[in-house]
Amino acid sequence: MAITLPVAVDAMGGDFAPDEIIAGARRAREEHGIPVVLVGRSEELTDTGGLEVLPASEVIAMDADPGASVRKMKDSSLVRSAEAVRDGVASAMVSAGNTGATMASALLRMGRIRGVSRPAIATLLPTPGSTPTVLLDAGANAECSPEWLAQFGQMGAVFARDRLGVAEPRVALLSIGEEPGKGSPLVKEAHAALEAATWTDSTFIGNVEGRDLLTDEVDVVVTDGFTGNVALKTLEGSMRTLMTALLTSLGERPEAAAAAAELGPELDALYREFHPDTYGGAMLLGVKGVCIISHGSSRALAVENAVRVAAEMVEADMVGHLTTAVGSPASD
Amino acid sequence: MAITLPVAVDAMGGDFAPDEIIAGARRAREEHGIPVVLVGRSEELTDTGGLEVLPASEVIAMDADPGASVRKMKDSSLVRSAEAVRDGVASAMVSAGNTGATMASALLRMGRIRGVSRPAIATLLPTPGSTPTVLLDAGANAECSPEWLAQFGQMGAVFARDRLGVAEPRVALLSIGEEPGKGSPLVKEAHAALEAATWTDSTFIGNVEGRDLLTDEVDVVVTDGFTGNVALKTLEGSMRTLMTALLTSLGERPEAAAAAAELGPELDALYREFHPDTYGGAMLLGVKGVCIISHGSSRALAVENAVRVAAEMVEADMVGHLTTAVGSPASD
Repeated sequence: MAITLPVAVDAMGGDFAPDEIIAGARRAREEHGIPVVLVGRSEELTDTGGLEVLPASEVIAMDADPGASVRKMKDSSLVRSAEAVRDGVASAMVSAGNTGATMASALLRMGRIRGVSRPAIATLLPTPGSTPTVLLDAGANAECSPEWLAQFGQMGAVFARDRLGVAEPRVALLSIGEEPGKGSPLVKEAHAALEAATWTDSTFIGNVEGRDLLTDEVDVVVTDGFTGNVALKTLEGSMRTLMTALLTSLGERPEAAAAAAELGPELDALYREFHPDTYGGAMLLGVKGVCIISHGSSRALAVENAVRVAAEMVEADMVGHLTTAVGSPASD
Repeated sequence: MAITLPVAVDAMGGDFAPDEIIAGARRAREEHGIPVVLVGRSEELTDTGGLEVLPASEVIAMDADPGASVRKMKDSSLVRSAEAVRDGVASAMVSAGNTGATMASALLRMGRIRGVSRPAIATLLPTPGSTPTVLLDAGANAECSPEWLAQFGQMGAVFARDRLGVAEPRVALLSIGEEPGKGSPLVKEAHAALEAATWTDSTFIGNVEGRDLLTDEVDVVVTDGFTGNVALKTLEGSMRTLMTALLTSLGERPEAAAAAAELGPELDALYREFHPDTYGGAMLLGVKGVCIISHGSSRALAVENAVRVAAEMVEADMVGHLTTAVGSPASD
């Protein structure tokens, strides 16, 4: 890894903090050589394997009000992580904590890239046999303007290139029919805004539907944060339901159970391919720094992957590329 | 079956019309004793097994503009099917044709139940080990008011009782968090409208998320037609992707292929449980008659199930129950 500044890992955030967070951070350091700094209550962080600790005395709860807690808890692990990036002490931040508070910390402490109207959460959807699909906004902005959606498309294209190596990403708008005249008023206006936007090394290919999300038909799918979050959680829920139904049905007949045991490697691979932990978390695009939002239920593997992806995005200069792609010509 | 008036089946609509439609209609008649009338071009309807035919000379194409085609093509199989219900010649209508034109035909020819603001499409989502979840609106209204959503909840509760036998349906609003303060402005207002609505033999239980759709946590999920359609298609797409990935992975290793062959019954059952054809199509709730919208890709099984469900809904007097649940006290 070429990065020298450490990745700031919020050791206090997530359902399995701090133990699984520390374990993941250690693996990122020990197996990938990535410099890491843990942020949190030093006295609660044990078995760190010598990882540096940046002290922060407060913890923002998973269900706390994001805005209020970030304003009040100035010595929280989340706020301190974002400040570390702002101050050039860390190269990126990773948290499995309160998603809203992670966004708020990053937005308030790092600030927006100039020219960016609103940051958006980009997440990866598994596409068997092909590169994953980038979906954004996955939940940062419950209400959006058509122009924001156009900018999400431009940011998503940069992310698809830097994160997935897609040379010329195909960007599409999520709707309920392929025709530009279909959909809600927002979607119809967003279609026009996306058509009018500037596409550098990327293409706007029109509307796609929910069934296209997990296919190779598109690289980046743009939608408002409400619809994106519903689609993402519907997808996660249906995967879980189908996997559970499969495993349940395989256990009911002795011959089936034996056959299922034989299929262990295949079922494991499938489970991993569709599991959110595999993808290293979602990314907040549009702030002046790399900020990775990991699932609340992240265990060590998810944290390890999130740190790895954070380091890769720093190395790729994703923030610089976002600035070029959407940055306004006004002085900073 | 207690119904005496036949179910009008649009023999011309759907990707596999008329052969698969006729085959399904015949099976409904022959195996379930349900009276059926085929609607379409007599000369193209062969091998009908003696089913009565109601002639209609025109066919609305799958991709035709719904409003314009229904207005212009007065002798189309869709318009004639809806008129048959209106005129008391048929008890219900079933079509696998153009969804928008099916809705427009039903709305314009049968009319709305008095008191109903907008008809909505109700669809069933598989919930392994439990009754399916009713999702509405699945695509009739891309833009909705909070009050419409409250009424969708009331109609969905009637549907869950009549169609699925749920004694006291739990109705929820689809959002991106369980707290009433989460979501888009529409969702926040709809939450208040749903809380203020009258619930007879049903309960409004608050917000649910996309991951709850396929669980036993809720019986009826209300959303606008844009979000509902995205969720439904995301679900269908993810099921197809996961099933395909599973079958592909099972074919790659000889021992796995043998084990998979042993699992035939389990995989078949799972495939059937999650296949849309199993559920007999979606229903347009709020018009003065039973109108079933079957998948465009419906084959005989899907049509057979759709006709069976149509007859059951007539027998249950679902339209009467909807009228009582949402009907305004004003004179008709």
